[in-house]
Amino acid sequence: MPSWTHLIRFRAVEDGHVHLGQLVDTSRDVGIDCLNGVEVKAFLINGDIFSGTVTDIVLTVDHEGGFPIPDELEVFTKPRMALTGPFPAAITIPKCAQDGTSDYEAELCVIIGKTGRDIPEERALEYVLGYTATNDVSARTLQLAAKQWSFSKGLDNSCPIGPVLVSPSAIDDPQSLGIKAIYNGQTVQNGNTRDMIFSVKKQISYLSRGTTLEAGSAVLTGTPAGIGYFRKPR
Amino acid sequence: MPSWTHLIRFRAVEDGHVHLGQLVDTSRDVGIDCLNGVEVKAFLINGDIFSGTVTDIVLTVDHEGGFPIPDELEVFTKPRMALTGPFPAAITIPKCAQDGTSDYEAELCVIIGKTGRDIPEERALEYVLGYTATNDVSARTLQLAAKQWSFSKGLDNSCPIGPVLVSPSAIDDPQSLGIKAIYNGQTVQNGNTRDMIFSVKKQISYLSRGTTLEAGSAVLTGTPAGIGYFRKPR
Repeated sequence: MPSWTHLIRFRAVEDGHVHLGQLVDTSRDVGIDCLNGVEVKAFLINGDIFSGTVTDIVLTVDHEGGFPIPDELEVFTKPRMALTGPFPAAITIPKCAQDGTSDYEAELCVIIGKTGRDIPEERALEYVLGYTATNDVSARTLQLAAKQWSFSKGLDNSCPIGPVLVSPSAIDDPQSLGIKAIYNGQTVQNGNTRDMIFSVKKQISYLSRGTTLEAGSAVLTGTPAGIGYFRKPR
Repeated sequence: MPSWTHLIRFRAVEDGHVHLGQLVDTSRDVGIDCLNGVEVKAFLINGDIFSGTVTDIVLTVDHEGGFPIPDELEVFTKPRMALTGPFPAAITIPKCAQDGTSDYEAELCVIIGKTGRDIPEERALEYVLGYTATNDVSARTLQLAAKQWSFSKGLDNSCPIGPVLVSPSAIDDPQSLGIKAIYNGQTVQNGNTRDMIFSVKKQISYLSRGTTLEAGSAVLTGTPAGIGYFRKPR
């Protein structure tokens, strides 16, 4: 039985190394604190996540040590043959990705309802036909072998979508929606669109700069924490 | 098996309509002729690019018609609105890229003639409908701001294509073709497909792994040395 209750993996300001730690203040949302530059402290854990013990050594989380917060949206497109139905059987994993590294990424998907270009942020939600669920299934070995993601995230039947398209009239605020991935009965991602780095309206505005966003386009808006690639065991 | 060998899509002086045609004089550089105002004639093709037949009706082309070694291929896709006609006036540079860093990349373009997946290298050229020219116009500031290229290389009207689609029956070897970019009268790129890192057949095979390559797809195969970004002065 591990002695930690709120474990993080972090780079310490004090020594520049990566450690496991137990949050000192478990009442706070550490993801948000990191994003906002609030200092986060952790008790050093000696050992691994299975049997490590919490010490009384306190270290400071280096906010730059994890995923840096990007200044620009990373945009890639998928070929249309990547789209498939919403249920797991609809996903197929081709030979080139059958090495056990295919991974889930639960995402809010926005379907564009009218064609636009250079859409200002304050009018962006007028272009939304509806919201639905997607899984941006990613072949991690292929993804890591190249810089561009269109191929590793664009394989046939790798992007299930649906099953319900929800009208904006039924959603007060697209930035307060839960996002869950459930894998073999276990909840493996459990986020909320309020934690998005770039809001839905900012994404629509950004994507449409000099680029016609056609009615019927599906915009995948990015995934919260918990993807399998960082899980041990996966 | 289509009966054309040098296909163009053009607006005819005679009727003002857009047609498919077979070049009458296949020995000339029609792109240069059009730019220089030299008259270009074409036999009208009845039907589409896949199964159309060449007639003996001759029409005149309206020039104003709207015109480090990687281990892995870097693959990205463009939205279809990026495609535009072959002549410089067809390229538009949107506000977000008007900082003087839009750049040319002359490339051989392969048009896929039949839909395939997991295409073996030794059969890949059977899937080629024809070869043509493209300019993978790139907004360098936007490109350098992000890791993914679909946005900076996918702006509206940034990918001119054509003007001639040349049948494989007229090209002995796609790995012995010259590639030239001429910018304001100056030859700025002057390469040859023999210097490609990944051959055309390797690219087709690679792209089709687990991914349906649809008939009508345009594959841009990469640019030789000489892009403006590395020129001083540009």
